[in-house]
Amino acid sequence: MAVRPESKSEARVWVVQDGESTAHTDQLATEEPLEIRLRVGRSVDGKGPVPVFRRQGAGQRTLSITMRTPGHDFELAAGFLYGEGIVRGADDIHALSHSDDARVEEDRRFNIVNVDLRRDTLPDLQSVERQLYATSACGVCGKASLEALRVRGAPAIAPGPVVEPDVLRALPERLRAGQDLFDATGGLHAAGLFDLQGNLLALREDVGRHNALDKLVGWALLQRCLPLSQHIVMVSGRTSFEILQKCLMAGVPIVCAVSAPSSLAVAVARDFGMTLVGFLRGDRFNVYAGVDRVRVAAAVEG
Amino acid sequence: MAVRPESKSEARVWVVQDGESTAHTDQLATEEPLEIRLRVGRSVDGKGPVPVFRRQGAGQRTLSITMRTPGHDFELAAGFLYGEGIVRGADDIHALSHSDDARVEEDRRFNIVNVDLRRDTLPDLQSVERQLYATSACGVCGKASLEALRVRGAPAIAPGPVVEPDVLRALPERLRAGQDLFDATGGLHAAGLFDLQGNLLALREDVGRHNALDKLVGWALLQRCLPLSQHIVMVSGRTSFEILQKCLMAGVPIVCAVSAPSSLAVAVARDFGMTLVGFLRGDRFNVYAGVDRVRVAAAVEG
Repeated sequence: MAVRPESKSEARVWVVQDGESTAHTDQLATEEPLEIRLRVGRSVDGKGPVPVFRRQGAGQRTLSITMRTPGHDFELAAGFLYGEGIVRGADDIHALSHSDDARVEEDRRFNIVNVDLRRDTLPDLQSVERQLYATSACGVCGKASLEALRVRGAPAIAPGPVVEPDVLRALPERLRAGQDLFDATGGLHAAGLFDLQGNLLALREDVGRHNALDKLVGWALLQRCLPLSQHIVMVSGRTSFEILQKCLMAGVPIVCAVSAPSSLAVAVARDFGMTLVGFLRGDRFNVYAGVDRVRVAAAVEG
Repeated sequence: MAVRPESKSEARVWVVQDGESTAHTDQLATEEPLEIRLRVGRSVDGKGPVPVFRRQGAGQRTLSITMRTPGHDFELAAGFLYGEGIVRGADDIHALSHSDDARVEEDRRFNIVNVDLRRDTLPDLQSVERQLYATSACGVCGKASLEALRVRGAPAIAPGPVVEPDVLRALPERLRAGQDLFDATGGLHAAGLFDLQGNLLALREDVGRHNALDKLVGWALLQRCLPLSQHIVMVSGRTSFEILQKCLMAGVPIVCAVSAPSSLAVAVARDFGMTLVGFLRGDRFNVYAGVDRVRVAAAVEG
């Protein structure tokens, strides 16, 4: 009987204090690889899905392998593909399943997600590969990275909505309160989706910096509520190019983080009309782009 | 005149407090892509280095592109290649340089590092590709990931040395005190190398989770002080499979972190005889593996 991997793992730990060590059982965030296999359904001739890639002998070419915390694997796969521009909507996906590959040990099949696309023809493989290359490559400077986003069809975010500062200030506590796994393991990134009144709609956690956000976007995709044009996303930790890229593809107008943004995160936000908030803790926060979406008195020069 | 990118960038920021926003100039951690081009010197016939890969038309195949904070680029490239098992020592590297590729705009050349290897023959390309594939793939379960490390020749860490708990407790403050960029930008990961008395030997910072550690290992490689068998590495944030992989390849016996480890980080540490410390803050810490390297009274069951 195959055992589905859990999000938490138990481990023996020695707590060292006052020159003594005490043995305890502790909970850790599970980290396991996830492989995404992209397949295309042949609905016309009634045959089952066929793999997109056939390079590795009889097997399929793997689209992505990432270390992740098991759980919400389908959302992770769907959100990742959406962020890369390979899947354009829920209708593109025919089915999501864990692998039933007989050549793979049963336990390991939970680390492989099959994504069956609904299209009748194979996607343009070269285009997919180019896109994936562009993702990891993004040219060789920040400006080229921004251009690559534009080429891949990332839409600029339309003006509005406007939120109250108090709504933003309330987010960190609500994100933290929703982090079940963090409470148990003390070691996970989180991404939360909020409405404009600051109500938490969905929250995902992962050891991987970007996986929590991919899971969140994948959830929204499968719920058919993309683009997230009337929503706020808040992430634990810092904001980077990739975090902003994923939010942009999902149409999120307001992105908040507990810590600092990178230079390129700010550049993406400014270029594509997003609001980027950082150091959201205590009673103040910093707005790095799109301050017009925050209802405040006219800006004073500091 | 080409402009070398700086580790810090300035940005206009609006500080929102008490319903008002005040405009300031803030410093951000710079995030720019880095491309590593692996080339092999032909010392025999006197010709210059030639690219290893020739797949992309006349250009070279890029070995890795990562978003990073500019600065210590040569160390980052060297450390990355060492962690992947492609470079086995400083003698394998003939030269490190920023690109002089005339087809690339001058400013962007600082985002490309040429690594000229000293070997007279091309490395086994298939082996390199297999290794890179194994890195991103790591099989499809945690156990396979550990096996992949073994296959790539990662050495188990020999027993010893033993350190005092007080030495470990002093590390977080010393790491933090050395983080110049963090002070300015508030948004960077750090990796610090300490001796067994807790003296800080080197510290590197980066927006990228693993880049700070790659820079540190690259520094040690170029200083010819690998393996780091009498050293402690401390990272900000959490420990994952990749962090432990890089420390293992560098021969580090004791790895410490401010936050929690993942399940797979603990598994690597236990399988390869490393000491893994987490939640190193205040007057206590947790030891997840290799508690025998910490001088404490015999363990009590909690």
